[in-house]
Amino acid sequence: MRPAAVDTPQVLVNGRPGAGVPPLDRGLGYGDGVFRTLRIDAGAPRWWDAQLAQLAADCAHLGIVCPPEAVWRDDLSRLQLPEHGVLRLTVTRGEGERGYRPPAFATPTRIVAVWPGEALADAPRSVAARVCRLRLGHQPALAGVKHLNRLENVLARAEWQDPEVAEGMLLDQAGRAVGGVMSNLFVWRRDTLLTPRIDACGVAGVARARLMERAAGAGIAVAEADLGLDDVLEADELVFTNSVILLWRAARLDGRAWGAPVISPTLWNLLHA
Amino acid sequence: MRPAAVDTPQVLVNGRPGAGVPPLDRGLGYGDGVFRTLRIDAGAPRWWDAQLAQLAADCAHLGIVCPPEAVWRDDLSRLQLPEHGVLRLTVTRGEGERGYRPPAFATPTRIVAVWPGEALADAPRSVAARVCRLRLGHQPALAGVKHLNRLENVLARAEWQDPEVAEGMLLDQAGRAVGGVMSNLFVWRRDTLLTPRIDACGVAGVARARLMERAAGAGIAVAEADLGLDDVLEADELVFTNSVILLWRAARLDGRAWGAPVISPTLWNLLHA
Repeated sequence: MRPAAVDTPQVLVNGRPGAGVPPLDRGLGYGDGVFRTLRIDAGAPRWWDAQLAQLAADCAHLGIVCPPEAVWRDDLSRLQLPEHGVLRLTVTRGEGERGYRPPAFATPTRIVAVWPGEALADAPRSVAARVCRLRLGHQPALAGVKHLNRLENVLARAEWQDPEVAEGMLLDQAGRAVGGVMSNLFVWRRDTLLTPRIDACGVAGVARARLMERAAGAGIAVAEADLGLDDVLEADELVFTNSVILLWRAARLDGRAWGAPVISPTLWNLLHA
Repeated sequence: MRPAAVDTPQVLVNGRPGAGVPPLDRGLGYGDGVFRTLRIDAGAPRWWDAQLAQLAADCAHLGIVCPPEAVWRDDLSRLQLPEHGVLRLTVTRGEGERGYRPPAFATPTRIVAVWPGEALADAPRSVAARVCRLRLGHQPALAGVKHLNRLENVLARAEWQDPEVAEGMLLDQAGRAVGGVMSNLFVWRRDTLLTPRIDACGVAGVARARLMERAAGAGIAVAEADLGLDDVLEADELVFTNSVILLWRAARLDGRAWGAPVISPTLWNLLHA
């Protein structure tokens, strides 16, 4: 039997359980902040160092002072981490005066949230995906950063209700593939692993960087590329990655179906290790 | 002497003073919400009907249920509205499960904040402005909506510290003028009042719509147009509008200076009336 508390998240705001966020926080007012979503396995956050490094890099990009690791560790010590689950770390610029101008000195707000979840399977899940109508806008000044301005993702995710469809693929305004709504995208084609550039839009996922590094280390040809929808449809295999799912393979993308796994079990093992 | 409380905002979250916002609110997590900023004069919000209509339209655009006017009125009745000031109304989609997907049934969060401010002058202020380096991305699915994804504005406003510069002008990725960082833009040229289209980016300000309507009603030629930086620099006069400042005229834009007011006093009177 599933315990009743299984879906109840534990949340700390600046280390305090049960606290609210100040209503004039700039994270709420303008989406002025960043976040990272981590997977918890064996009661511990996965890829901790890489996730924290990316969170700090994203903070630096926006000129926000990222809390040091000791502060996050202290927060985590106040929570009951589940055996398996999801951890979201959020940093906002904090409160400021009215107006877009970032305050010269602001105290960032940090939010730690933990949700219980399920164990990973032994192999990548095969999922149905769709191509979203929403096209991502180009904004090189924010590309790659996992900031709190995620309305494009919300609108894209709102396009479908079919529970059989697990992920949506996003193209940009120029028709190039960028990633999934909540994931990065890899195309396996002619023995090469290709992933869209994320210099105009998209998020630099930790799973993406890790898979690129590990696949290259295993002797697989890996490259960033400009990929159109045709390139995606002509893939020998298509996979989505993020830090929570690790890796899903597309069984179909709208009308295009793929047969048996080709490279995805290998990629799963590389990412999972 | 200025009273100490003059800069202290009064804030209600769902009608409650001193309340925080739930840390898992989607307004904070994804910028999943909208807002409007109103001017208070004679102790009452200016352009109330138009502002509320625009807030409701923006909510509808995102599929958020906008609280009805009576609810906002009730909130306002709990506050001490200053003689002059600023009122911000914010609506978020409310709390939801983890993930981008909007919940089928969500209870929106509403935030009302009031700041005391100064009386309007009798004529438009002449200000120095600059052209921002940041170029707005195109996103027709969100263009015009005053949503909570405002990092572009934050980055643009962070470009300058000079207190003499009151506003920044924003171009889009194609080099077309869109507006000010916190305002809409009008170009007066050859007896015509031109304002950038806002179908790819930018915000549909209530002051913008009102000025267009009133200027047209007064027999002034008014049109939306594609305006390049050259068109802006060749203007006979340049004005910025929003609901708080009403209307500023540019005394200079980077190296370009303008002399005496041409049409701005007339536009001010049309907007102020």
